[in-house]
Amino acid sequence: MDDLLGSDLRTVAKSLRERKASPVELTRAALARIAGQQPKLNAFSCLTEERALIAARQAEQEIAAGGWRGELHGVPVAIKDLCDMAGVPTTASSRVRQDHVARTDAAVVERLERAGAVIVGKTHTHEFAYGAATPTSGNPWDATRIPGGSSGGSGAAVAARSCFMAIGTDTGGSIRIPAAVCGIVGIKPTYGRVSRHGITSLSWSLDHAGPMTRTVGDAAVSLAVLAGFDGRDPGSADVPVADYVGELELGVRGLRIGVPSNWFFERLDPDVERNARAAIERLSSEGADLVDVDIPMADKIMPIEFGLMLPEATAYHHDMLRRHRDLYEPDVRTLLEAGALIPAIDYIAAMRVRLQVQAAWRQMYDAHRLDAIAAPTVPLPATARGQANHRWSDGTEEEVISAYVRLSAPANITGLPSVAMPSGFAASGLPTSVQVIGRPFQEARILRIARAYERTVDWASRTPPL
Amino acid sequence: MDDLLGSDLRTVAKSLRERKASPVELTRAALARIAGQQPKLNAFSCLTEERALIAARQAEQEIAAGGWRGELHGVPVAIKDLCDMAGVPTTASSRVRQDHVARTDAAVVERLERAGAVIVGKTHTHEFAYGAATPTSGNPWDATRIPGGSSGGSGAAVAARSCFMAIGTDTGGSIRIPAAVCGIVGIKPTYGRVSRHGITSLSWSLDHAGPMTRTVGDAAVSLAVLAGFDGRDPGSADVPVADYVGELELGVRGLRIGVPSNWFFERLDPDVERNARAAIERLSSEGADLVDVDIPMADKIMPIEFGLMLPEATAYHHDMLRRHRDLYEPDVRTLLEAGALIPAIDYIAAMRVRLQVQAAWRQMYDAHRLDAIAAPTVPLPATARGQANHRWSDGTEEEVISAYVRLSAPANITGLPSVAMPSGFAASGLPTSVQVIGRPFQEARILRIARAYERTVDWASRTPPL
Repeated sequence: MDDLLGSDLRTVAKSLRERKASPVELTRAALARIAGQQPKLNAFSCLTEERALIAARQAEQEIAAGGWRGELHGVPVAIKDLCDMAGVPTTASSRVRQDHVARTDAAVVERLERAGAVIVGKTHTHEFAYGAATPTSGNPWDATRIPGGSSGGSGAAVAARSCFMAIGTDTGGSIRIPAAVCGIVGIKPTYGRVSRHGITSLSWSLDHAGPMTRTVGDAAVSLAVLAGFDGRDPGSADVPVADYVGELELGVRGLRIGVPSNWFFERLDPDVERNARAAIERLSSEGADLVDVDIPMADKIMPIEFGLMLPEATAYHHDMLRRHRDLYEPDVRTLLEAGALIPAIDYIAAMRVRLQVQAAWRQMYDAHRLDAIAAPTVPLPATARGQANHRWSDGTEEEVISAYVRLSAPANITGLPSVAMPSGFAASGLPTSVQVIGRPFQEARILRIARAYERTVDWASRTPPL
Repeated sequence: MDDLLGSDLRTVAKSLRERKASPVELTRAALARIAGQQPKLNAFSCLTEERALIAARQAEQEIAAGGWRGELHGVPVAIKDLCDMAGVPTTASSRVRQDHVARTDAAVVERLERAGAVIVGKTHTHEFAYGAATPTSGNPWDATRIPGGSSGGSGAAVAARSCFMAIGTDTGGSIRIPAAVCGIVGIKPTYGRVSRHGITSLSWSLDHAGPMTRTVGDAAVSLAVLAGFDGRDPGSADVPVADYVGELELGVRGLRIGVPSNWFFERLDPDVERNARAAIERLSSEGADLVDVDIPMADKIMPIEFGLMLPEATAYHHDMLRRHRDLYEPDVRTLLEAGALIPAIDYIAAMRVRLQVQAAWRQMYDAHRLDAIAAPTVPLPATARGQANHRWSDGTEEEVISAYVRLSAPANITGLPSVAMPSGFAASGLPTSVQVIGRPFQEARILRIARAYERTVDWASRTPPL
């Protein structure tokens, strides 16, 4: 069973379908492994053992009766503790929510359960998703390091092989940052592609939900289950869902991939840069055409990200902040109080500049006939827990949260899909990551590109020292 | 020629097509009439005589050569002076813009000229469209009264028979209010239906552009020319354009029309109410099914309208206000300065409540299977120029601008199409108006309903005492 827990989702799905493995035993093994890891990693805010075993038994019976529902059927997965699950607390890893119990399921929970997935528990987030550290939890590669954030628990759980997929959310990089520093795959789909109904909001115009997995193929099958229009999410897009798995193995011959000459390759850890450039070269030797591109309006990325996120987050928390000010952690409270001071005209200016940036990116993709852009996901591997600043080799310092968000935020403000995947390891042994950013609703294309690289390496089999 | 100027657009179009009238002579007659009316009405901020005569001559030649382009070909029309026209000032009726000359054409100008229309001039607006009075101009029915606003010049020009159609814009009622108090037809299409590219913005999430005409049929043929997707307007909707003329004469048998029991029939001038109820009864005797409906969340309408408009307008004017504070009229300056004080979180709250109101209206239409809602357009006929407040019969006072916006704003915050048309006259001899509000992109349906009423009356032939 340990072998099976160590494999990827699509491999375990095959075993379950062929009844070489039992969903119930697999679920029990996953729950046991989580329990064993909790003292060190604390990736989970709660386990949903009872509901998981009921789902596993049902899956076992259905598969035995020939009713296999697809690759998630009977597979242990986890959801970030921002997602509502009826009867279970949605803590958002905050003391503010200690007495909060959800009455209904989030759309992603509905979709996972409809696909027969077994939700084993809920994973820790940076408080209310407002940060990139997830201080509650450890990184499986080195528990003295952060698992990234805000979906840090999901990143740690998938990397530690205690579940096969975990839901993350991404407002400034919160799927891709933990995927990057935990050495797994994470896809932030196009804005509106996956419903956020029932997920605690951070910043409605930047929030996305998506899967975090061990392999690119696992991300494709998971996204196929999660994607689709949902009128209950005002940002949901009524666009047909593409075939994410069908294109996966088509390779990159003839595809055009932009390599940014600015922004994405500035202030980088040398190992991160080396591995990213090697991954991009690999795509070239697989047949992709590389094109140098200038990222337009790069100096506007962070002002837009923070100019939208700060007031949107405060608008959401306003009443709670008044009633429960002292229950928030100081870092989150400070950000929420800062957001209250931003005038509407500045927020509106940020919205207007975002439209200009979106148009400029469209133009960049069109002018170079790009299929995607490839670049590092984050500028540095996992930092130490509690570390506030990173000192670059030129002697300058940068806040860790700013460093982590800097390269992932472009896909949030543009709404473009981006998949992060392992690009190897730094000299320290910590994972590094590269991301592929595509055109709107072209998740199939970026997954295909990511898969073309993944086929040439074997990072997924390198497991953390657990 | 005076007879021809007095007729409606579709009648004059027939004469032009059959070469019974000359576009050049018609244009000269229109320009002469405008010149004659200017001292009293001052509907126009400038005439574009030279460009008009070139267009008229071209139309004459094309029609003579059998190249008739459609019902606007060779027809004198006007545009609100918020719309850019290359080489011509866009004054927005403001001293702030006294030296501003547009370099390109607004999308509505492009479309009108492509259809062969002859633009004879630009019409006055309340300064920067930020008001409902248009103090520069007079009402053709009584020049001591306001023509409404902000598209007051367009309303006065069409009512005074000096052009056959004029472009208006509508953020809180600025097409329908002047249409109502000037006794003409005005349609505010669905949000995104007509491009606002090249039109000075008041409030980007509430702004609409549309035609003001003498008859419902004229509105239909004009909208057919103006409607369509335009990527240069970020709010533009990529939705197919319906056939606005084809359905016009189908009548209302079997259509379901909602009659609001709250909000739209509160605090009304008795003549306005009597005429609106009579018009609705007429639709019933023409075969429509009337349904009593409760307008949901009515107490949120004005907070949303002003909560969005104030900061959006200030965001647009921010830099100009800093440089040219003293050139703004005091009423507009006050509103712009007030908008700077609104926190982003309040603006975001208004956006969120707007989504709830939109959903509640959708539900109302669905629950009653409504084709449209019919209600008064404005609660009172044209007020005196300079009058700030209106005293109701119960002794309460209301700001004139609030009164005028109150019944038109629902279609702005919901984005739903609304056509205003004459419903008769008050005892004072001033026109009254009724509006028909439809489902998204169902302009054809509301025009058909309006036409069914119009067929039974002859308001369009009753001309102001000029």
